[in-house]
Amino acid sequence: MGNSRRYAAEFIGTFWLTLGGCGSAVLAAAFPEVGIGLLGVSLAFGLTVLTMAYAIGHVSGCHLNPAVTVGLAAGGRFPASDILPYIIAQVAGAILGAAVLYLIASGVPEFDLVASGFAANGYAEHSPGSYSLLSGFVAEVVLTMMFIFIIMGTTHGQAPVGFAPLAIGLALTLIHLISIPVTNTSVNPARSTGPALFVGGWALGQLWLFWLAPLLGGALGGVLYKWLSPTPTGIVEGGVPSK
Amino acid sequence: MGNSRRYAAEFIGTFWLTLGGCGSAVLAAAFPEVGIGLLGVSLAFGLTVLTMAYAIGHVSGCHLNPAVTVGLAAGGRFPASDILPYIIAQVAGAILGAAVLYLIASGVPEFDLVASGFAANGYAEHSPGSYSLLSGFVAEVVLTMMFIFIIMGTTHGQAPVGFAPLAIGLALTLIHLISIPVTNTSVNPARSTGPALFVGGWALGQLWLFWLAPLLGGALGGVLYKWLSPTPTGIVEGGVPSK
Amino acid sequence: MGNSRRYAAEFIGTFWLTLGGCGSAVLAAAFPEVGIGLLGVSLAFGLTVLTMAYAIGHVSGCHLNPAVTVGLAAGGRFPASDILPYIIAQVAGAILGAAVLYLIASGVPEFDLVASGFAANGYAEHSPGSYSLLSGFVAEVVLTMMFIFIIMGTTHGQAPVGFAPLAIGLALTLIHLISIPVTNTSVNPARSTGPALFVGGWALGQLWLFWLAPLLGGALGGVLYKWLSPTPTGIVEGGVPSK
Amino acid sequence: MGNSRRYAAEFIGTFWLTLGGCGSAVLAAAFPEVGIGLLGVSLAFGLTVLTMAYAIGHVSGCHLNPAVTVGLAAGGRFPASDILPYIIAQVAGAILGAAVLYLIASGVPEFDLVASGFAANGYAEHSPGSYSLLSGFVAEVVLTMMFIFIIMGTTHGQAPVGFAPLAIGLALTLIHLISIPVTNTSVNPARSTGPALFVGGWALGQLWLFWLAPLLGGALGGVLYKWLSPTPTGIVEGGVPSK
Repeated sequence: MGNSRRYAAEFIGTFWLTLGGCGSAVLAAAFPEVGIGLLGVSLAFGLTVLTMAYAIGHVSGCHLNPAVTVGLAAGGRFPASDILPYIIAQVAGAILGAAVLYLIASGVPEFDLVASGFAANGYAEHSPGSYSLLSGFVAEVVLTMMFIFIIMGTTHGQAPVGFAPLAIGLALTLIHLISIPVTNTSVNPARSTGPALFVGGWALGQLWLFWLAPLLGGALGGVLYKWLSPTPTGIVEGGVPSK
Repeated sequence: MGNSRRYAAEFIGTFWLTLGGCGSAVLAAAFPEVGIGLLGVSLAFGLTVLTMAYAIGHVSGCHLNPAVTVGLAAGGRFPASDILPYIIAQVAGAILGAAVLYLIASGVPEFDLVASGFAANGYAEHSPGSYSLLSGFVAEVVLTMMFIFIIMGTTHGQAPVGFAPLAIGLALTLIHLISIPVTNTSVNPARSTGPALFVGGWALGQLWLFWLAPLLGGALGGVLYKWLSPTPTGIVEGGVPSK
Repeated sequence: MGNSRRYAAEFIGTFWLTLGGCGSAVLAAAFPEVGIGLLGVSLAFGLTVLTMAYAIGHVSGCHLNPAVTVGLAAGGRFPASDILPYIIAQVAGAILGAAVLYLIASGVPEFDLVASGFAANGYAEHSPGSYSLLSGFVAEVVLTMMFIFIIMGTTHGQAPVGFAPLAIGLALTLIHLISIPVTNTSVNPARSTGPALFVGGWALGQLWLFWLAPLLGGALGGVLYKWLSPTPTGIVEGGVPSK
Repeated sequence: MGNSRRYAAEFIGTFWLTLGGCGSAVLAAAFPEVGIGLLGVSLAFGLTVLTMAYAIGHVSGCHLNPAVTVGLAAGGRFPASDILPYIIAQVAGAILGAAVLYLIASGVPEFDLVASGFAANGYAEHSPGSYSLLSGFVAEVVLTMMFIFIIMGTTHGQAPVGFAPLAIGLALTLIHLISIPVTNTSVNPARSTGPALFVGGWALGQLWLFWLAPLLGGALGGVLYKWLSPTPTGIVEGGVPSK
């Protein structure tokens, strides 16, 4: 029972991350003349995490991201036995988020799912700025590593209490400000999987990178921070302090 | 006396939400070359709630929105007997906000109330991006549901103390980043009613949707969060911790 | 000695508000292609107050604005005997801020002080969007009233501790998001006076409005909040909690 | 051992500041139609500091900037004996940040390192807005002075606890909103050194200004705040409260 509520929280939260982040990109980024641009999309992704971390952090830790779950486990903050159910809940939530977004976005006659890109992640000819596979790999590994490093640090027992959701959400905003042109920014395999299932084709074919690089980066970030500041924190369940 | 102060706070707060949010849209969004765009409008709506929640949260709970009031009641956080006076105060405040905005906006010779749209909400041919009634309905229900879910969560007794107004305000910013192109974003029947009374015609004719969908979504959000995390919180009067 | 430090803090803080807010407008708002626009200027003004309120709130209360000083006095939170020295320090700081901005801005050969507007406030033909005197007066009175209302509320003894500078700074951002097109946004007679002394001519001729309207609005806001929530707070010196 | 962890934290943090801030400028600022502009770059620089200050503030104080280290020493908050190792760690981190950025940015065939500017700082003909050496010098001295003034104030023992990283990060955002057109904004000799080593030529030739002016400004800011509010704080190691 306690666990099913935690998985439900991860499901709802990742639904929100995908609907909100990808939704702002698909619906509002390039709106004529007054569109929110990549800056607005970056803010939206960060705010999905910020808002959910304050709302459900005390329930599940609010990972919303397989790379966060794996990274926190690598850093000694999350039990390995819970990795798989968390990831399943996250991917399921992301798929529902993409489905609801599709329902809304397709309410315009001229909507073309594939032509829109549907906020899927890509490299080389499917990178927004035509960045190579190597650029995409490096960006995703390094940025996910730093994301989990920041999560580990801001939820450390000596960090200011209560500010972790703010810092973590804005870290995701920052990561998008840097890297949307490179890969459309993943750092989150669940968020990548939702839209890719709808776009199909190339998006599914490139999806492997957005599992491999974030998971690798997440594990590196967890290990790096643990080395830097190994003090035990007493927080074992996730990325956000429960109080 | 105690109650009249609470109603006055809701009146003033919803006045601010409508003047600030709709005002930024009408006066500044499309200002030539340096306009604030949909990103600026999204930020403005969120900041009206953030600022008021810190200022009057301890007085009335700072709902500023019939969907919040109904959603919190559905979630067991607000007494049903106070729903009606709260909604009356909110709608009255929104009307005054729209009136003051009209007074300011009409100080330019070429101002055309109806042509401007006056930040009224709409669907189909009155959706900013021509989204269908179904798209608008889904967007308003789901986004209001998540808004109240976040309000319930961030004001839960186990959430970090003091951060709820920040998270709730930024949740409203996020919701606008996603959905202004779809319906001009309501998630708040009071905010929709103010401008609609001035625009008249189509805006009044479509107003039903912006009562129905947000109220439905709000109730769903309250019930969903209550199911997820039923721990009693001791907060009975509203959306913001009083201390 | 204690008092001279407080006046010095107001001097430095208002210097920062004027240099930062007006500086972003003059130097960066309309920079070709990547300019920060009115959204960036709005953020800059708010951040001058946010940063200073955390830095010197415990020294002087961080008013940085004669309308805040007068409004807090009207609301019973500030001693009348200190109004005049605070205002003198604020105006002096704003003049120095404008002077340093002039020094920087004039380092480009084609800089034309008067043609640039130098971020001075204006109405009618000197309103950025050609809004009438009445529009400007209403906007400045109402927005300053709400600004001081929010300051009174967020520094009330029952409001969450420590968040007032955040909410107050972002309130100023919100006010700019609404009203830069109307008057270039003052709500602060000191901020208006600095640039007006450099622009001269029309800017000095219209300066009366940007003393009258903000001071009137500030007093109304202080009285309104005091009526709404009269509980004594123990904070007598200004707009920011000292701890 | 304790010290090596602190130096490692400064190395990682300055790596993040340079990769994130300069990365957003090089990769995303001028992206066609939806680029983040100078506003997005300003936000990115600030968020690198905000996120790191919450993550590693309790380890090293999170200076990430020789001007902060020197300024805090001048203000009596940091031991002179640690200045040199901190600066070495910061510069090394900035160089690695620029190197990783180069690796990512060069993954597009048409990338031209020198033509891109690579976010290097400059004056006169290498100022983004062609501002003179004098303008650049004044801007860098004054803005760095105010930056360290704000750091000293927000980490003072009487300032609200836990908010310093927020205020300091957003202060850096504000500084960029003002001055990117003038010098591309340094206020940080380490951040300037990283890209200059890659661009070479003019960037190395002008680098002296971005050591001299920030260090001078930082020292002035530390001394100014110490004069304003000399109360001892008990914080000796750096710019962020450890709890």
